[in-house]
Amino acid sequence: MLTLAGMGVYGYRGLSIDAVDAIKGADKVYVEAYTSPVRDEDMDALRALRADVVIVHRWFVEDGRMLLDEAKVGDVVLITYGDPLVATTHTELITRARSLGIGCRVIHSSSIVTAVLGECGLHVYRLGRVATLVSDPMASTSTYYVLYSNLMQMNHTMLLLEYDQERGYSLAPDDALRILLECEARERMGVISSDTFAIVASRVGMEDMSIVGGKIGSLLRHEFGRHPHTIIVTGSLHFTEVEALRVSANLLDEPIDNSRHVRARAEVMLSSYIPRAYSALSRARGYLASGVERDAMYSSMKDMMDNAGYYLSDAERFAREHRYEHAILALGYAEGLIDAFRYLTGIDPWTSRRT
Amino acid sequence: MLTLAGMGVYGYRGLSIDAVDAIKGADKVYVEAYTSPVRDEDMDALRALRADVVIVHRWFVEDGRMLLDEAKVGDVVLITYGDPLVATTHTELITRARSLGIGCRVIHSSSIVTAVLGECGLHVYRLGRVATLVSDPMASTSTYYVLYSNLMQMNHTMLLLEYDQERGYSLAPDDALRILLECEARERMGVISSDTFAIVASRVGMEDMSIVGGKIGSLLRHEFGRHPHTIIVTGSLHFTEVEALRVSANLLDEPIDNSRHVRARAEVMLSSYIPRAYSALSRARGYLASGVERDAMYSSMKDMMDNAGYYLSDAERFAREHRYEHAILALGYAEGLIDAFRYLTGIDPWTSRRT
Repeated sequence: MLTLAGMGVYGYRGLSIDAVDAIKGADKVYVEAYTSPVRDEDMDALRALRADVVIVHRWFVEDGRMLLDEAKVGDVVLITYGDPLVATTHTELITRARSLGIGCRVIHSSSIVTAVLGECGLHVYRLGRVATLVSDPMASTSTYYVLYSNLMQMNHTMLLLEYDQERGYSLAPDDALRILLECEARERMGVISSDTFAIVASRVGMEDMSIVGGKIGSLLRHEFGRHPHTIIVTGSLHFTEVEALRVSANLLDEPIDNSRHVRARAEVMLSSYIPRAYSALSRARGYLASGVERDAMYSSMKDMMDNAGYYLSDAERFAREHRYEHAILALGYAEGLIDAFRYLTGIDPWTSRRT
Repeated sequence: MLTLAGMGVYGYRGLSIDAVDAIKGADKVYVEAYTSPVRDEDMDALRALRADVVIVHRWFVEDGRMLLDEAKVGDVVLITYGDPLVATTHTELITRARSLGIGCRVIHSSSIVTAVLGECGLHVYRLGRVATLVSDPMASTSTYYVLYSNLMQMNHTMLLLEYDQERGYSLAPDDALRILLECEARERMGVISSDTFAIVASRVGMEDMSIVGGKIGSLLRHEFGRHPHTIIVTGSLHFTEVEALRVSANLLDEPIDNSRHVRARAEVMLSSYIPRAYSALSRARGYLASGVERDAMYSSMKDMMDNAGYYLSDAERFAREHRYEHAILALGYAEGLIDAFRYLTGIDPWTSRRT
């Protein structure tokens, strides 16, 4: 039997009644030290519970053979930080164990994901895809695009920061924010700037937890203390989220809606192109009414311009309904019809100048 | 002092060492019975810990005055299921308490969000926005669009099902799936069908937990037993997720990539409309070459059709570069020019029939 027992965000004191029972009754107890550094006080408390608790590193669990061999014949408990299966390494271990016919049990505990979100006063219903931010530029670009997608959907983005136990390295929040700004400088999707509002949650679950919110420019000048840290780039904020942030966080700046700038490149396109097409249409109709047109084509061209008008009003309606593909298609079609006037008359209704 | 103490997905046995200490030392202890029904065994265990634990309902916490008055002068603990701040009611209570200068503490515990995801073997990094599904049609339509957005981003969607303690009502998984199919019948975005793969996670954290995956058509014929249930509509699955599902879930059908059908309506639109526009253009050019056109307009119309061709090839290039808005705009413009031929000649190049 293999049991994964979560300590949650608290360490030893986050163990549940079930987890303590499992640890006491097991044949072998390991504690992992690679998703989070093991704190001395946790180790002391665990050793007070059982003197034979063994600290293990990533390779031991990824290799897994010793763990699985022991779990075939006895009760093995692996203690983890957080909710055990949030780490994919642990899901893979359970999958291997189950494939070998070993009984498995997971004792869930608090996860950094819901704990940080809650401490910031943010709604779980507004959280987009969670991403890990690492210092490697290729991987950080993909995180930047997760942020882009989340903001397009008005969602918050939680960024877990790289931790490498073997190198004793953890990505600092200011470096993390700088990496995102570098992605912006390369990718130029208008996702993030020094004016973007973000939250740095530090040491959630510990005595000296801190939640600091502000523009990235302000956060870059702040001292966050020792890790672990988690960053949230907020999307569109519900007013109750803003109220909660005001009393839960140390705010260096007022929260803003980060998604507004990013959202709907389609919206921006439509909001400038539709009025432009209406003006051109109105000029084309003016020329038609004033008799500039060749007589033979008058009625065809009038039909075309009437249709262009109908399609523009369709484009407006589709845009209101957030059916952007349809809106743009209708807009493009109307522009084509209006341009046919230009081809046929040599008069450019877009600029009032002759081509 | 106000403490929210989470029992996680387990009930009483999910309380952490910290939570038990807080309950023992408090002046007043309440347990909420509205985010989840309070199980008798939990109540018995809590009353064994403290005989004076009081069950409270939603109105008591939403009104909150008694709780806050007591927390001003003594230590009050509110015990909740799950991770306390995942419920917005609890975030609002904490916000009010902090605004009144009352000290607050949250003892996090396992949340249904990470626990269900982990038990299904799915990665937290592939989870899109979480939504609640309720039987009200207006609200369910908005959930349907969350599912649509998540699938467009290839993400999984977790659907928490309506629970109304006052009415003693909880939305059953088969009703939930039927509601989504009804949304599809109304909205027709191609999001979901009886062939969509979904997972129903029932009673996660309890002895008789069950994880069942399959096509919605198969799930509708399955018996899931008593609540609580959570539904996950998977997006694009990593191969380790498929492996984990095979050993963790009772699979009625093989998992599939649900996002493939939903993704990029723009792509679908472009891949059928561009060839259609090319055929129309080629017919229009054929008519021009065969002298059907009115002579006076020959050169204007030839210019227009040449331009339509350029714009169609732009549309293809933009589509290849995933610049869908630009692709559709170019396509629409080309269609407008091609239709001008129809208006001017009375010949419909789209169907080869006269209008």
